[in-house]
Amino acid sequence: MIKKLFAEFFGTFWLVFGGCGSAIFASQIAPSANGQLGILLIGVALAFGLTVLTMAYAVGHISGGHFNPAVSFGLLAGGRFPAKDLIPYIVAQCLGAVVAAGALYVILSGSGTPDFSGPGAFATNFYGDAVYFGKGYSMGAAFLAEFLLTAFFLIIIMGATDKYANGKFAGIAIGLALTLIHLISIPITNTSVNPARSLSQAVFVGGNAMSQLWLFWAAPILGGVVGGLIYKFLLQRDSDEIVAD
Amino acid sequence: MIKKLFAEFFGTFWLVFGGCGSAIFASQIAPSANGQLGILLIGVALAFGLTVLTMAYAVGHISGGHFNPAVSFGLLAGGRFPAKDLIPYIVAQCLGAVVAAGALYVILSGSGTPDFSGPGAFATNFYGDAVYFGKGYSMGAAFLAEFLLTAFFLIIIMGATDKYANGKFAGIAIGLALTLIHLISIPITNTSVNPARSLSQAVFVGGNAMSQLWLFWAAPILGGVVGGLIYKFLLQRDSDEIVAD
Amino acid sequence: MIKKLFAEFFGTFWLVFGGCGSAIFASQIAPSANGQLGILLIGVALAFGLTVLTMAYAVGHISGGHFNPAVSFGLLAGGRFPAKDLIPYIVAQCLGAVVAAGALYVILSGSGTPDFSGPGAFATNFYGDAVYFGKGYSMGAAFLAEFLLTAFFLIIIMGATDKYANGKFAGIAIGLALTLIHLISIPITNTSVNPARSLSQAVFVGGNAMSQLWLFWAAPILGGVVGGLIYKFLLQRDSDEIVAD
Amino acid sequence: MIKKLFAEFFGTFWLVFGGCGSAIFASQIAPSANGQLGILLIGVALAFGLTVLTMAYAVGHISGGHFNPAVSFGLLAGGRFPAKDLIPYIVAQCLGAVVAAGALYVILSGSGTPDFSGPGAFATNFYGDAVYFGKGYSMGAAFLAEFLLTAFFLIIIMGATDKYANGKFAGIAIGLALTLIHLISIPITNTSVNPARSLSQAVFVGGNAMSQLWLFWAAPILGGVVGGLIYKFLLQRDSDEIVAD
Repeated sequence: MIKKLFAEFFGTFWLVFGGCGSAIFASQIAPSANGQLGILLIGVALAFGLTVLTMAYAVGHISGGHFNPAVSFGLLAGGRFPAKDLIPYIVAQCLGAVVAAGALYVILSGSGTPDFSGPGAFATNFYGDAVYFGKGYSMGAAFLAEFLLTAFFLIIIMGATDKYANGKFAGIAIGLALTLIHLISIPITNTSVNPARSLSQAVFVGGNAMSQLWLFWAAPILGGVVGGLIYKFLLQRDSDEIVAD
Repeated sequence: MIKKLFAEFFGTFWLVFGGCGSAIFASQIAPSANGQLGILLIGVALAFGLTVLTMAYAVGHISGGHFNPAVSFGLLAGGRFPAKDLIPYIVAQCLGAVVAAGALYVILSGSGTPDFSGPGAFATNFYGDAVYFGKGYSMGAAFLAEFLLTAFFLIIIMGATDKYANGKFAGIAIGLALTLIHLISIPITNTSVNPARSLSQAVFVGGNAMSQLWLFWAAPILGGVVGGLIYKFLLQRDSDEIVAD
Repeated sequence: MIKKLFAEFFGTFWLVFGGCGSAIFASQIAPSANGQLGILLIGVALAFGLTVLTMAYAVGHISGGHFNPAVSFGLLAGGRFPAKDLIPYIVAQCLGAVVAAGALYVILSGSGTPDFSGPGAFATNFYGDAVYFGKGYSMGAAFLAEFLLTAFFLIIIMGATDKYANGKFAGIAIGLALTLIHLISIPITNTSVNPARSLSQAVFVGGNAMSQLWLFWAAPILGGVVGGLIYKFLLQRDSDEIVAD
Repeated sequence: MIKKLFAEFFGTFWLVFGGCGSAIFASQIAPSANGQLGILLIGVALAFGLTVLTMAYAVGHISGGHFNPAVSFGLLAGGRFPAKDLIPYIVAQCLGAVVAAGALYVILSGSGTPDFSGPGAFATNFYGDAVYFGKGYSMGAAFLAEFLLTAFFLIIIMGATDKYANGKFAGIAIGLALTLIHLISIPITNTSVNPARSLSQAVFVGGNAMSQLWLFWAAPILGGVVGGLIYKFLLQRDSDEIVAD
C-alpha cells in the first residue's frame, strides 16, 4: 500500500508541476519582432495530458494511476476501486499537488517578475467575473463544463481499462483525453477536472482562487461519479452478453 | 444492441462537444500585450482527432466506434457493417451530436458575448461566399475536398481494422487521420466529413448553415462509400492471396 | 503485386494531398483582430507525419508503406527490398503524387485568390536565393540538410522494422520521424526528403521549382542509400550476436 | 559493444540535430502580413521528444537508448546499467552531440544571417541574467528546475521499462516525457536535462554558454541519480510483493 501512495504522490506532483508549470512558465511570452511566442494554450493542454500519459506508463502498474480525487471517486462509483483506499489515495494526491505547487512557487520567485495575483495567475482556476481569456463564463456555465468533462473523462477511463478493451493503450487514451479536455475548456475555467490540482494552486494564491475552490471540488467529483455510473450501467457488458455478441 | 447505440450516442456527443467545443471556446483569443493566444486551428484539429482516438479505445469494443454516418455508410459499402444496423446507428449518432450542441449552446450562452451568427460561428460548416479564414472556396472545391477526405478516411479505417493489419493501433491511426483531415481543410469548409456533426451545429444556427447542409451530407456519404469500395476491391487481400504473399 | 502498387499509389497521394495540402490551405492565415491564425509550420509538420502514420497502419501490411522513392532506394541498399520492385514502386509513387497535386490544384483554383508563383508557393521545395521564411539557405546547406535528414529517416525505418525491434510501433516511429524532419527543415528547403513529393509540386508550378528539382532527387536518394548502409553495417545485429547479447 | 556505442552516437546526434536544429532553424520566424510564424516553442518541445521516441524504437533494442549522460548515471544508480559501460556510453554520447552541432553550424553558416552570440543563440542553455524569453531566472531556480525535471525523467524511464510495466510503450512514454519537460522549462534555461546536449552547443559558442556549462552537467546528473534511487527504493516492487498484490 505504501508504494501505491508514493505512486499517487509522485504522479500528482508531476501532473501539477508539469501541467501548471507549463502554463506558468511557458504559455505566455510577449511577442517580439523576431517572432518569439510561447507554447500557447495548445502547449499547456498537451503538457497536462502528457503528465498523465507518462506517469500512467511509469507507475500505473503500481497504483492504477489516478492522480486525481475525482477519478478515485468515479472509479469507486463504477465498481473498480475499493472504498477503503479512497481517503489514503486522496490524501496522497493532495500532498503531491501541494508540494509541486511549492516547487513552482520557489522557481517562479527566482525570476525577476513573479506574478501571483489576478484571475488565472499561478494557473489557478476561476469562474464568473474573471475575464482572463477575453471573456468570462458564469458560475453555471463553469459548473456544467467541469461536470460534463469529468463525466466523459471517467467514461473514457472506465472504457479504456475495461477487460474487453485494448488495455495496454489506456495510458495513451486517458492521457490524451486530458489534453482534449484542456483544449476545450482552458478559456472557460482554466480547466480543473481535478480537485487536487485546483487546491494546490489556490493554497498559494488565496483570494478568489480560494473562495471559488468549492466548485472545483463539487463539479469534478459529481461528474466523475456520474461518469462512472454511466459506464457501469449503460455501456459495460454483462458477462453473459459476451457470448451473445 | 442498446449498448451499441449508447456507445454511438456518447461517442458522437464527445466528438461534437470536444471538436466543435474547442473551436467555439478556445481557438480564437484576441492577441494581447502578454502574448495570449488560443489553441489555433492546429488545436482544433488535434481536438477532433482526440475525440475519436479516446472514444475508440473507450467504447470501440462495444459498437465499433463509428460516431459518423459517413463511416457507417462506408463500412456498409466495404462489407464490414450489416445493413440492418445502419438506421439505428445514424439515429443514435445524430441524437448524440444534437444533444452535445445543446450543451455547447448553454455553456456559450453563459458567457457575456455569445456569437451564433455569421459563417463559421458556432463551428458551422460552410462553402462559397463565406470568407471566414481569409478566402472563400467555391461549392465545387468544397464538395471535392469533403469527398476526397472522407474517401481516404474510409480507406484508412478499412485498412487499419483489416485482419492482416495491427488492429490494436487502429484507434490511434483513425483518430489521428481525423486530426490530419482537419489540418488540411478547416479553412476550406470548417471541415465536416461527418453529416451528424454538420447537422448538430446547423440546427442551432439556421440560416446559411441550414441551407448548405445538403453538401455536408452528400459529399461525405458519397466519399465514404467510394472509399469503402476502393479498399474492398483494389486493396483488400483475397484469402488465397495470403498464401501467395 | 498490383495491390502493392495501388497501396503505394494511394499512400503517396495521401502524403502529398495531406502534407502539401495543409501547407497550401491552412498554414498561413492573415492575423486579424480576433486572433485568427492558421496551423503554422508545426501543423504542416504534423500533417506530413500523420499521412505516413495513418497509411502505414492502413496499407503498410500490403506494400510495406514506402510512399517515397528515397525510402525504396534506401531499403534496397539496406537489403530489405528486392531490386526488381524498385521501378514499379517509384512509378506508382510518382503517379500518386502528381494526381494528388492535381486535386490540390483544382481545389485551390476554386478559391478567389489562388497563388501558384514565387518560392514556396503551392508547397514547392527551394534553395538558394529563395527567401520564403525570413532567410535563404545556400545550395550546399540545402543539400547537406536533405542528405542528413533522409539518411536518419532510413536509419529509423530500418531500425524500427528490425526483427529485434517492437515492429508494431514502426508506423508511429516512422510517421513521427517525418514530422520531426519537417519541424527542423521547413524554413531551409520547405522540406523534401521525398523526390515524388518535390516532383508533383514542381510539375504544376514550373520555373525555379523545376530547375531546382534535381537537388530534391539527388540529396534524398543519396541520403537514403547511405542511411540504409549505415544501419546494415554499423547497427544491425548479425545472427550470431543474438546469442552473445 | 561497438554497435551499442554506434547506437548511442547516432541517437545522440539525432537528439541534438533534431532538437537544437528545430530551435535554431524553425522556432522563430518574423511575423509578416500573411501570417507566417515558425513552429514556436511547442514545436521545439515536440521535436526534442520525437528525437528520443524515434530513436528509442530504432536503436533502443541495441543500446537501451540513453542518448544522455544523466540517463546513464540515473540507470546506474537505479541498478539497471553496469558501471563498466558508463564511460564508453558518455564518450559516445558527447561525440555524437558535438558532431551534430558541427553539422548544424555548417548549415546555419549557409544562411545569409547566421547568429551565434547572445544568450540562447545556437540553442545554448543559460541561467541568471540571460533574459531570452521575456524574463530571467536565477541560478538557484535554474538548478532546481533542471534537478527536478531530470529526477522525474528518470522515474518515468525506470517505471516505463519496469518488467511489470507495458514495456513496449516505453519509447512513447519516455520520448513524450522529454517533450513535456521542454514544454515546462524552455523559458527557464532553454532546457537541458542532458549534459551532452549542453556541451555540444557551448563548444561552438563559448562565452557564457561555456562558463555556465557546469550547472547543466551537475544538476541533470544529480537529478538523474536521485530519480533512479527514488524509483528503486520507494516505487519498485520487491519480488515477493508480486504475490501479495
